[in-house]
Amino acid sequence: TDSLQGKNPARSSGLFFREGKKRIDYILVYKKSSPQVEKRCTFEKNLRAEGLMLEKEPSLTNNDIMFVKVHAPWDTLCKYAEQMNIRMPFSFTINNRETFFSNSTRSRIVHHVLQRTKYEDGKLKMGINRLLGNNTYEAAFPPHEGGYKSRHPIKTHGAQNHRHLLYERWARWGIWYKYQPLDLIRRYFGEKIGLYFAWLGWYTGMLIPAALVGVFVFLYGLFTMDSSQVSKEICEATTTIMCPMCEDTCKPWRLSDSCVYAKVTHLFDNGGTVFFAIFMAIWATVFLEFWKRRRAELTYDWDLIDWEEEEVRQQYPQIDQISFDINSRLRSFLTAVFAVVVFRLIAMEKFASLNWYFVKKNWQFATSGTGVCINFMIIMSLNVVGVWTKHPRTESEWENSFALKMFLFQFVNLNSSTFYIAFFLGRFAGRPGKYNKLFNRWRLEECHPSGCLIDLCLQMGVIMFFKQIWNNFMELGYPLLQNWWSRRKMKKVDGHPLKFIQTVLSSAVLQFGFTTIFVAAFPLAPLLALLNNIIEIRLDAYKFVTQWRRPMPARATDIGIWHGILEGIGVLAVITNAFVIAITSDYIPRFVYAFKYGPCLRGYMNSSLSVFEMKDVNSSQTRYCRYRDYRAPPWSPVPYEFTLQFWHVLAARLAFIIVFEHLVFGIKSFIAYLIPDMPKDLCDRMRREKYLMQEMMYEAELEH
Amino acid sequence: TDSLQGKNPARSSGLFFREGKKRIDYILVYKKSSPQVEKRCTFEKNLRAEGLMLEKEPSLTNNDIMFVKVHAPWDTLCKYAEQMNIRMPFSFTINNRETFFSNSTRSRIVHHVLQRTKYEDGKLKMGINRLLGNNTYEAAFPPHEGGYKSRHPIKTHGAQNHRHLLYERWARWGIWYKYQPLDLIRRYFGEKIGLYFAWLGWYTGMLIPAALVGVFVFLYGLFTMDSSQVSKEICEATTTIMCPMCEDTCKPWRLSDSCVYAKVTHLFDNGGTVFFAIFMAIWATVFLEFWKRRRAELTYDWDLIDWEEEEVRQQYPQIDQISFDINSRLRSFLTAVFAVVVFRLIAMEKFASLNWYFVKKNWQFATSGTGVCINFMIIMSLNVVGVWTKHPRTESEWENSFALKMFLFQFVNLNSSTFYIAFFLGRFAGRPGKYNKLFNRWRLEECHPSGCLIDLCLQMGVIMFFKQIWNNFMELGYPLLQNWWSRRKMKKVDGHPLKFIQTVLSSAVLQFGFTTIFVAAFPLAPLLALLNNIIEIRLDAYKFVTQWRRPMPARATDIGIWHGILEGIGVLAVITNAFVIAITSDYIPRFVYAFKYGPCLRGYMNSSLSVFEMKDVNSSQTRYCRYRDYRAPPWSPVPYEFTLQFWHVLAARLAFIIVFEHLVFGIKSFIAYLIPDMPKDLCDRMRREKYLMQEMMYEAELEH
Repeated sequence: TDSLQGKNPARSSGLFFREGKKRIDYILVYKKSSPQVEKRCTFEKNLRAEGLMLEKEPSLTNNDIMFVKVHAPWDTLCKYAEQMNIRMPFSFTINNRETFFSNSTRSRIVHHVLQRTKYEDGKLKMGINRLLGNNTYEAAFPPHEGGYKSRHPIKTHGAQNHRHLLYERWARWGIWYKYQPLDLIRRYFGEKIGLYFAWLGWYTGMLIPAALVGVFVFLYGLFTMDSSQVSKEICEATTTIMCPMCEDTCKPWRLSDSCVYAKVTHLFDNGGTVFFAIFMAIWATVFLEFWKRRRAELTYDWDLIDWEEEEVRQQYPQIDQISFDINSRLRSFLTAVFAVVVFRLIAMEKFASLNWYFVKKNWQFATSGTGVCINFMIIMSLNVVGVWTKHPRTESEWENSFALKMFLFQFVNLNSSTFYIAFFLGRFAGRPGKYNKLFNRWRLEECHPSGCLIDLCLQMGVIMFFKQIWNNFMELGYPLLQNWWSRRKMKKVDGHPLKFIQTVLSSAVLQFGFTTIFVAAFPLAPLLALLNNIIEIRLDAYKFVTQWRRPMPARATDIGIWHGILEGIGVLAVITNAFVIAITSDYIPRFVYAFKYGPCLRGYMNSSLSVFEMKDVNSSQTRYCRYRDYRAPPWSPVPYEFTLQFWHVLAARLAFIIVFEHLVFGIKSFIAYLIPDMPKDLCDRMRREKYLMQEMMYEAELEH
Repeated sequence: TDSLQGKNPARSSGLFFREGKKRIDYILVYKKSSPQVEKRCTFEKNLRAEGLMLEKEPSLTNNDIMFVKVHAPWDTLCKYAEQMNIRMPFSFTINNRETFFSNSTRSRIVHHVLQRTKYEDGKLKMGINRLLGNNTYEAAFPPHEGGYKSRHPIKTHGAQNHRHLLYERWARWGIWYKYQPLDLIRRYFGEKIGLYFAWLGWYTGMLIPAALVGVFVFLYGLFTMDSSQVSKEICEATTTIMCPMCEDTCKPWRLSDSCVYAKVTHLFDNGGTVFFAIFMAIWATVFLEFWKRRRAELTYDWDLIDWEEEEVRQQYPQIDQISFDINSRLRSFLTAVFAVVVFRLIAMEKFASLNWYFVKKNWQFATSGTGVCINFMIIMSLNVVGVWTKHPRTESEWENSFALKMFLFQFVNLNSSTFYIAFFLGRFAGRPGKYNKLFNRWRLEECHPSGCLIDLCLQMGVIMFFKQIWNNFMELGYPLLQNWWSRRKMKKVDGHPLKFIQTVLSSAVLQFGFTTIFVAAFPLAPLLALLNNIIEIRLDAYKFVTQWRRPMPARATDIGIWHGILEGIGVLAVITNAFVIAITSDYIPRFVYAFKYGPCLRGYMNSSLSVFEMKDVNSSQTRYCRYRDYRAPPWSPVPYEFTLQFWHVLAARLAFIIVFEHLVFGIKSFIAYLIPDMPKDLCDRMRREKYLMQEMMYEAELEH
């Protein structure tokens, strides 16, 4: 992309026409082999008629590529600046015609002309966008303002140009801990990109308290691990014989064998988790409400308050041709989820009957681990397929809906197996002697005696960790590899910065969702998200400043549909966390036991296991084995029926969901009501300005 | 109020100055005894300097009252019309100077001058509002456009004036079934009042389907009353002896005695109720979403799209002096609720031990009935006290917050005892042998064996019915009485139409809340609300057209805070209806019984009653009596403990709440997402107009 600037640094450093004086304000790229010669000629003739100057230069690397450099002379600039109502300090005397209009204003003016020049007779036959659409031109962009590196250090010699300043103050790794220079970003890249980085920075900043509290909750689990009554009882239960976990090859096993597993479970399934789930639900609300305020401040500072989209929207012909085939996607990822489920069932049986001692001993962990890894691979490959879908080339409402569809697909893809593990795994396993089987062949998985949360936790941890590593590789390593590969071949560069923002916003929102929706199961999620975002900001900054064409500065007042999606995720997160704590975690059964059956948790493990008489199935040395459920023992008048305790626990679980949801939604709405969307002083300032304006206008009227 | 127009119809029909030519554009009223003579003189001098003409005329009925008639001559009108940017069809030639400016434009111009004329030296010492505030003037208003009645019928002679047209087309009782002429209302009274009547009409229209479905649900209950298994079992249960309902004087009674009560309960507590609760929750959403669209259409038709409040907000001195004492209110109505609770307990005992056979037999009904009536009286008297609070005299944000506080107070006042009856009555009564007592003296009330819903239903019906009768009397009868009484004395008229709108909107929103929040208990509520609204619209119209001063036409784009409150009520209604069906109604226990214990409801009544061994308390002819609860019989190993069935029912109740709320909120959000806030064609039209405007401006620029 920077072949134009990079290849001829000696001759006018890529910023000027060949004669060395006329500044390049815009660059068009076309292929000589393109058949649309006539349109291009008419267009360029009309551009010259509008007062622009053009100069052509062939690419050094690819003979088929031709660059058209566009320069707007002083008279043209003045004419259009007046037409476009560009506010300039006209009270100043014009000292230097070269520097009177800033570079971004010059580019904006040329862009304006490009948008409105005809290439054929006919009402809508105008504008560079349509020419890009029908491949008359390959690309159109304003040039960067010189190199981003300087031979002289910035501290002694000052910034060489805006790009250099941005690189030094923003895009270097060394300043990862600093606030972003938002006003500089806005000046160079426009409000839309500035707003994106403001949002990303805001999100990252808000993650810091969440990550801290998450780490504290994790540490609380770590320090109370040894004193936990439940894992203590499991570790001491050398005489408790559990029912076999699989059909033919498995044998009854001692509860104390799963001591380590129980301890790890306690790490994530303790009272701190409930607190953290409430905290994160409120955090999400505060995050969104304060972002609204921050946005209001930014739009005020950047003069966007009364701004509305100015550009005339043109109809693009190719909209109808691209259709996002949501049905086939749905089918493919449903198949994938189902495949993982079946895989886990088969793997469980195989691992348990393997002759390899280590795997055989830890077969539960091995099953979960491999299951999650395969799941991760499926998720990533489906995502890649998603990205390969042809993107529409235009920024329009339709693209918004496209971004929404892509997001929904990725969201479902990422979360569906997690939902399965959280709410379905182990619920429908049946009981010894009456197991439910898939296709009458594979027994459905059971939860571990110490609870179902650990599987969810493993899923969260693995997916978050690997996904981030993968993402960073794709963003950092892959382009480098690609660059190295494309040294010889000229490749069409498809990294459109504004489109990129949609993609990255989408992935940041996905991450926000993954972080908050199941945060009860994995309190370290905010920390991982925080680390990822710190890298993300500088990586994106680096790409924007050094790797990509400069985008046409675009305005925007909001992050678009994403705000609504974030609010939706905030609501969903409350519901899922309520269900995770009530149904997946063992917090409620322990609470009921402590409250109703004993002063503390002593004997909880024993009470949570039911008895099964094994001679029904096969005769072995022990007569009774235990399993995780609340059912009557075989010697009861109604054997294997649910006990009273089951109904107590069920009522408590349901009551918890009701109380948690009403409480947290109540707090959420109250906070949203308390925090006005606009800071008080900003509101006053705006009202005062408006009042002064009205007074001024009234005075002016009176004077007439 | 119409003494000015009414008293001297012969002389210039109250529309002109004494000389019979100059039209009256505004009327100011002051008391001769007011001490603020100096301010008034300065003000009137300044008004004359601005070009207005004044004429004074004493009141015929009260010697202390003086009217100041204001006329704006042609030159003044032209000058200010230009200053205020009033759009006039200047392409027409000015044929008649008398009719060129419409009456409402003339009033607006005079109002503008009145707002900005000084009465003293000093920065903020100007405007009629402040003079009204410090009692320099008593009132300021534009006159009505002549009489609202005509000797000639409108069909043959046409409308005499706008007021007459409005009366014939809008304010007569005979046209109660017709749409309101919104554009006429807006032309005569301004956008704010037009919008209010648009909302009221919209609400009334939307109530029609709700009332229809409600009547069908009621009829369903009526027709299945005789075939209901539960009431059949109660009526046939001549051998089932129930435990005494009060302590000393009550005796055990036969279940079949409450046959009628059980039948009435079935009327309101059946499967149709659940359906109706879901229907009404969705109805409330659809109502609000479509109102947003209707409002968008109206604001477009009425040119309010880009309108913002123009008036400079002035600081009013008396804001700080009035404080709404919310704490003492809270205390007073908490006391009232508590008093009603205690009254019911005492009345229950007294009625049951009364020697009057009819009351003794129906003592339960008598208790509820008198309790509700007393409750109603307390509600109304507290409301009257609320209305008597001094209103602030200004339209400002502060008044919005005042309206909100008044609304909250009335909302809590109206609903708190209903909440008590719905969710607390009969829950904490205890069981025979271990009754809970208030002050160790009065036993808490139990629910009737056929369910708790009937009390709620009675409460709803009585309050809605009496409240409407009371309201209509207060609005129709009371002013007539007052008018008759004030024939002799001149009374200060305090009916400010714009303030009235706040009050009536508040009461309409209260009614909306009462209708939807407990609609599961009383499906006839929408019908009552519908009837009330049909009366309300014509009553208000009559008052606006015939009884009151014409208000200064004000603009508004929305019904203000009320929209947010309506949305809040919509959410609250889903929650309360879920709880009413799950907890108050007997729908869930019956469902669990039919599903788990029998193929149908046969034997349900027997299973829902527990057994108590009376010899524990006193020995009588029968040994066992029955009471409404799920407890183990005295001969069980754990006597009087909750049975398994109790826990089944509890789990089902809680699960129902969860399912109902998630389902209905899901449907609500989906509907809100589906219905865009602006109709598609309106959106297209606006976009097209904007596009055309941009193109025109661009063309105009090019021509320069």
